[in-house]
Amino acid sequence: MSVTAAKGFTAAGIAAGIKENGNPDLALVVNNGPRRAAAGVFTSNRVKAAPVLWSEQVLKGGSVTAVVLNSGGANACTGPKGFQDTHATAEKAAEVLDELSGGAPAGGHSAGEIAVASTGLIGLLLPMDRLLPGIEKAAAGLSEHGGEKAAIAIKTTDTIHKTAVAGGESADGRPWTVGGMAKGAGMLAPGLATMLVVLTTDADIEAPTLDTALRAATRTTFDRVDSDGCMSTNDTVLLLASGASGVTPGYEEFAEAVRTVCADLARQLIGDAEGASKDVRIEVINAATEDDAVEVGRSIARNNLLKCAIHGEDPNWGRVLSAIGTTSAAFDPDRLNVAINDVWVCRNGSVGEDRDLVDMRYREVRITADLSAGTDSAVIWANDLTAEYVHENSAYSS
Amino acid sequence: MSVTAAKGFTAAGIAAGIKENGNPDLALVVNNGPRRAAAGVFTSNRVKAAPVLWSEQVLKGGSVTAVVLNSGGANACTGPKGFQDTHATAEKAAEVLDELSGGAPAGGHSAGEIAVASTGLIGLLLPMDRLLPGIEKAAAGLSEHGGEKAAIAIKTTDTIHKTAVAGGESADGRPWTVGGMAKGAGMLAPGLATMLVVLTTDADIEAPTLDTALRAATRTTFDRVDSDGCMSTNDTVLLLASGASGVTPGYEEFAEAVRTVCADLARQLIGDAEGASKDVRIEVINAATEDDAVEVGRSIARNNLLKCAIHGEDPNWGRVLSAIGTTSAAFDPDRLNVAINDVWVCRNGSVGEDRDLVDMRYREVRITADLSAGTDSAVIWANDLTAEYVHENSAYSS
Repeated sequence: MSVTAAKGFTAAGIAAGIKENGNPDLALVVNNGPRRAAAGVFTSNRVKAAPVLWSEQVLKGGSVTAVVLNSGGANACTGPKGFQDTHATAEKAAEVLDELSGGAPAGGHSAGEIAVASTGLIGLLLPMDRLLPGIEKAAAGLSEHGGEKAAIAIKTTDTIHKTAVAGGESADGRPWTVGGMAKGAGMLAPGLATMLVVLTTDADIEAPTLDTALRAATRTTFDRVDSDGCMSTNDTVLLLASGASGVTPGYEEFAEAVRTVCADLARQLIGDAEGASKDVRIEVINAATEDDAVEVGRSIARNNLLKCAIHGEDPNWGRVLSAIGTTSAAFDPDRLNVAINDVWVCRNGSVGEDRDLVDMRYREVRITADLSAGTDSAVIWANDLTAEYVHENSAYSS
Repeated sequence: MSVTAAKGFTAAGIAAGIKENGNPDLALVVNNGPRRAAAGVFTSNRVKAAPVLWSEQVLKGGSVTAVVLNSGGANACTGPKGFQDTHATAEKAAEVLDELSGGAPAGGHSAGEIAVASTGLIGLLLPMDRLLPGIEKAAAGLSEHGGEKAAIAIKTTDTIHKTAVAGGESADGRPWTVGGMAKGAGMLAPGLATMLVVLTTDADIEAPTLDTALRAATRTTFDRVDSDGCMSTNDTVLLLASGASGVTPGYEEFAEAVRTVCADLARQLIGDAEGASKDVRIEVINAATEDDAVEVGRSIARNNLLKCAIHGEDPNWGRVLSAIGTTSAAFDPDRLNVAINDVWVCRNGSVGEDRDLVDMRYREVRITADLSAGTDSAVIWANDLTAEYVHENSAYSS
C-alpha cells in the first residue's frame, strides 16, 4: 500500500529526532526506475516554504529520483538559511543514495532531482544536526514494504496515517498501480489543502502526461477541500512514475486512477481534520458556471456561523443563504433552494420543508445549494467548527 | 445620549412580546423636525432581508420621519409575506404617529417615509399579532429621554447596549449634536457588520450631504469591522437630521462628528462580539494602495488559525504571513515585517525579535503588518476565535 504499492519504489519512515517527542518524523521515497518521470503541484500561497521553492525548481526538470519529507517543522519563513537547509537536505540524500545504489541511475543521483517537503510549525529552522543523519538512517531502512512507515513519519496533528491505491491492467493482463500517502489536518484549504502528498505509479508514463493527469485530479479533489479556510505555505503533491510495470495505460484510464487516489486521500484528510466532529459535503447545483459553483461552495464552507450550527446539529439554512449572498455568482435570491441531508428546508429563498425533519446525528452532513441559474455543479468538502479546534490551535506553538 | 442626544428626536423601547423571554424587542425613533432629511447604508449581502429591501426604497426619497426597529427576528428569507409584514409595520407606524402628532408633519405621516429594521434569526416570520400592538405601545412611550431604552430594545446577543455622541457648536456658540445607537454581536463582518445603527443629528443638513458624510464614515469604521467573517442579511445604518439646532456646521466638521460616532460604536461592537476574549486591531502599513491594505487586513482578520492563536495568547506570526500570502496585494514575501503588540517578531519574511517578548495578556491585541510596498495603510478590527463563540453559535436557533 501507500507509496510502495506500485512497483519500482522503496520507502522508509524513521524518527530522526526533529520532533521533540521522539515520534517518526522523516520519510524517504525512492524511485528505482527504470523511468523517473515526475509532476508536482504546489501551494498557491505567495508565502512559500523553502522546500516548496526548491521542489518547484526540481519538478521543472520533469524527473525526480527521490523525495525527502519531514514533519516537525515547516521550514517556512526561515529566510536564506532555510533555503540552504533544504538544499543541503537534497545534497545529503543524493550522496547517501549514491552510496547505496551502486551506480543507478546512470551518472549518479543529482540533488537537482531530489524533491523536499516539510510540514510543521512556520518560522523555525530545522535541526539539521539531526535531520541529515536521519537521511542516512532512512536510506538504510529503505524497503519495498516501507510505504506505511513513510506515511506515518509525515504525520503532524493527524490522528491516522492516510494511504490509498488504485490501478488497472493492460489488454494482455499486466497490472499497473497508482498508490499514495497524505498528511494534513489543519491549515486545510484551497490552493491545495495543507498537506503533503506523494503519489507513485509503476505505469510507464512521461512527465508531461503525469502533469496533465495530476493537475486534472487535484483540481477536483484536494483543491475542493476547505476544512478551515487557511491556506498553507507548504502544500505539495508529487506524482512519481517508475515505469516498472512496463504498461502504458490509456490516458483516461490512468487519469481516473490518479483522480481516484486523490479523492480517496482528500476524503481522509477531511475525516481527520483537527477538532472536527462533522464532515460536510457541500454540493452546489444548477450554477451558471463551474466557477460560480466553486465560489458559492467555498463561501458556504468558510462560514464560521454555519460551521458552528452544523456542530450543534442545527439545520440553520439562513446561514447558508447569507453565505451565498456574499458571492458574485449568478443567482436570484428568490430562486435559491437549500437542502440539508436531503430535506429541502429552503425553497425559493424562503421557508421550505420542516427543519425538524433533518437528522444531523451522523458525522457526514450533506448540504445542497440549488442556484437555479444553469447546469453546472461542484462539490466542496468542509468541516464543522468546534471548541476542540479552538483548543488544539490555541496552543499549537506555545 | 443615544438617538435622543440631538434635539428634535423622541424615542422609545418596549417589550412587544416578539422575544419569547419577554425582553425589550421593539424600538421607535421619531424625527420631529423641522427638517426630516435622512441617509442610509445597507448590507452588501445579495440576500437582503425584507426590511432592508423596504428601507432602501424609503431612503431613496431622502426623507425619514420615523424608524421602527425590532429584535427577536430578522424577517430575512421570508418571501412575499415577510415583505408584506414590513410594509404593514410602516403603515401601522404612520397611522399611530398621525394620531399622536396632531397634524405634523404637514400632510401626515407616510409609510413611504418610515424606515424599518429587524434583527434576529433568519427564516422566520415575525409575530405581527404582537408587533403591531407593540408599535402603539412604543408610540405612547415616546420621550426626549427615550434613547437608552431604544438602544436596549434592539439588542440580540449583545451583552451591553451601545450608544455614542459627538458634536460641535456654531461660530456664535449654538451647539449641534450627533448621537447614535448600535446593536450587533455576531455575523459581524464587512459590507457592514451585522448590526443595526441609527444616528441622529439636530444639525440642519440636507439629505445629499448626510449621505456623503455617512458613506465616508462607514467606509472606514463599520466597513472595517470583521469579527467573524460572516456578512448579515440585515445590516442597516441610518442617519436622520432634524435641523432642530438651527445650525448648519461646515461639512468637514460635521463629517468628522459622524465618523467619530461611527468609530466609537464600531469599537463597541468589537468589544462585545459573541464569545470573544480579545479585540484585535490589525494595522496594515506601507501598502501600495489602500485597497491592498484592506485586503491584507481582512485576510488576517479572517484567519481562523490565527484567531485561535490569539485566543491562546500565542504570537504565532507564521499564521499572519500565511494569511498575507493568500492575497493579491503587492508585496515581496522577503520584505514582510510583522509586529505583535509592537514587538517585531517577523523581519524580512523571517524570524525577527524574540517572540517571548510579546505580552498578550490584555484584551486588546495589536498586529502590525508592514508590506514594504508603498505608503498606504488601513486598520481592521477583529476578534479572536473561542470555544465560547462555538458554543454560542452552535445552539442559536435550536
